[in-house]
Amino acid sequence: MERAFETVLVVGGGLIGSSIARACKAYNVVGKLIITDTNPDVRASLSALDIADEVASSAHGVAAQADLVILAVPPGAMATALSGFADVLTPSCLITDVGSIKASIIKDITPLLPKNVEFIGAHPIAGTENSGPEAGFASLFDKRWCILTPEDETSTSAQKLKEFWEALGSQVAFMDAKRHDLVLATTSHLPHLIAYALVGTATDMETVTRNEVVKYSAGGFRDFTRIAASDPVMWRDVFLGNSEAVLEVLGRYIEDLTALKKSIRWGEGDVLLKEFTKTRTIRERIIDAGQDSAAPNFGRDHLEGEDES
Amino acid sequence: MERAFETVLVVGGGLIGSSIARACKAYNVVGKLIITDTNPDVRASLSALDIADEVASSAHGVAAQADLVILAVPPGAMATALSGFADVLTPSCLITDVGSIKASIIKDITPLLPKNVEFIGAHPIAGTENSGPEAGFASLFDKRWCILTPEDETSTSAQKLKEFWEALGSQVAFMDAKRHDLVLATTSHLPHLIAYALVGTATDMETVTRNEVVKYSAGGFRDFTRIAASDPVMWRDVFLGNSEAVLEVLGRYIEDLTALKKSIRWGEGDVLLKEFTKTRTIRERIIDAGQDSAAPNFGRDHLEGEDES
Repeated sequence: MERAFETVLVVGGGLIGSSIARACKAYNVVGKLIITDTNPDVRASLSALDIADEVASSAHGVAAQADLVILAVPPGAMATALSGFADVLTPSCLITDVGSIKASIIKDITPLLPKNVEFIGAHPIAGTENSGPEAGFASLFDKRWCILTPEDETSTSAQKLKEFWEALGSQVAFMDAKRHDLVLATTSHLPHLIAYALVGTATDMETVTRNEVVKYSAGGFRDFTRIAASDPVMWRDVFLGNSEAVLEVLGRYIEDLTALKKSIRWGEGDVLLKEFTKTRTIRERIIDAGQDSAAPNFGRDHLEGEDES
Repeated sequence: MERAFETVLVVGGGLIGSSIARACKAYNVVGKLIITDTNPDVRASLSALDIADEVASSAHGVAAQADLVILAVPPGAMATALSGFADVLTPSCLITDVGSIKASIIKDITPLLPKNVEFIGAHPIAGTENSGPEAGFASLFDKRWCILTPEDETSTSAQKLKEFWEALGSQVAFMDAKRHDLVLATTSHLPHLIAYALVGTATDMETVTRNEVVKYSAGGFRDFTRIAASDPVMWRDVFLGNSEAVLEVLGRYIEDLTALKKSIRWGEGDVLLKEFTKTRTIRERIIDAGQDSAAPNFGRDHLEGEDES
């Protein structure tokens, strides 16, 4: 099998970076996989996990070897990360990332690129609520979409990056960076903001104790706490970096929520029934598309350790 | 084993009613379990499922046998259901329900009670996004809380109803009906409203196609579609019947969301980071309390059938 890239450097050893390393090794995707992280504790974990051919103490010392560098740090830290090793890159090297926003990262990264070094944005739509190198796993990207935002999707580098992500198990889509940011504002950024806000509201209610919130969370609340447990730094960067699109969909959402509030206040049962009915079909389509489990309650109803309590 | 109730009539054969029937049979909780439903198709399904000692064509014909009648219909249909058989009840019979709201159901039911027939409200905090008799299962109530709202929690009937729910696997808590409605407005009603609204917003966006919403739903959106697939009639009744408490927590929520919107607009990264950090701990408490799975992504990351696509 010919490989799209021979030596890959992953910069950042968190959930996504360490999962890429694991998948590269598990599926034999690259010749040499180097990973680095600015945090010495993370580097120690990466070494102990034995998921890379080399855990480098700095990207600067190893970046010259790479024909692909993957920036796997929070969106707001991408430019700083790249500026630490841009001077040693070889001209044929391709730079990519894994950020959940694209236009602002491209804007940050582009001025830092050495001559003849190309950047193509990538966003694997995969993750969990856990963070750090221990949270990663090789199959994280299996059957998940990875969106690439190259200037020219027919270019050799775009096609090679597509091959790379397909080798990790992903389905690849090409998209304009601006469009990516609008679509993901709807399918990912707004859901996270809503969940963070709800968990904040519920835990700050003076009239309901935290103990009650925890005890009776199975009524629906617990689902939101999973999403609201996601990495706070990453999400801060997403909302700051994609504020325009997020504010647009958030404005729409608050309008819709306010309309439901009015219907509740005025006892408009027919309006509520109509709204609650139309939302049912979209889930069937998501399950049919292989993007969620059809099992009730995500199949979790039999909780681990439940027989012990 | 002495049974709290000998003959139990379940009125309504949907997810909850049929699960109670299954659990009663599976755990040998009652002497005789009769179930009924006004819908002949549901009755046919219940007969085919063989989960009750008798599937009655009407509650009126069998209610005289029961020492416990469980109203398992949507909150807005409770009074109509009871009025169909109240005249045949024996004085020692206890009436209960499974509704997600309590004060308005008590208000609807109380004037219809024959002399010496008592009603105690109950709310098993358990369910899935699926509806109908086929969606039920015996272990639905295992380790879940069931809230009872008797006038006097030391009464014989309250204690017997507690025993009954414990025999189905639940943990039982007594609570004032008004307090129940406020707590559940926070932990259940508001989350459902938020999810319904988000799914509505996302599917109505002119700028993002439904196809894109479905494809990229793994970014967070898919979680909300599960909740927004819940029974529309039941949820209409919940919001109409608990409008006061829902409007209170919804007002708070819209305030909090609007504050986050302002922070995004003004680029207040420190405020966002603080908000997103404080929401992390509540999930750990929910997992510790046995109310959710600790597995990443609710343990669903390996979707059924994924190897086939």
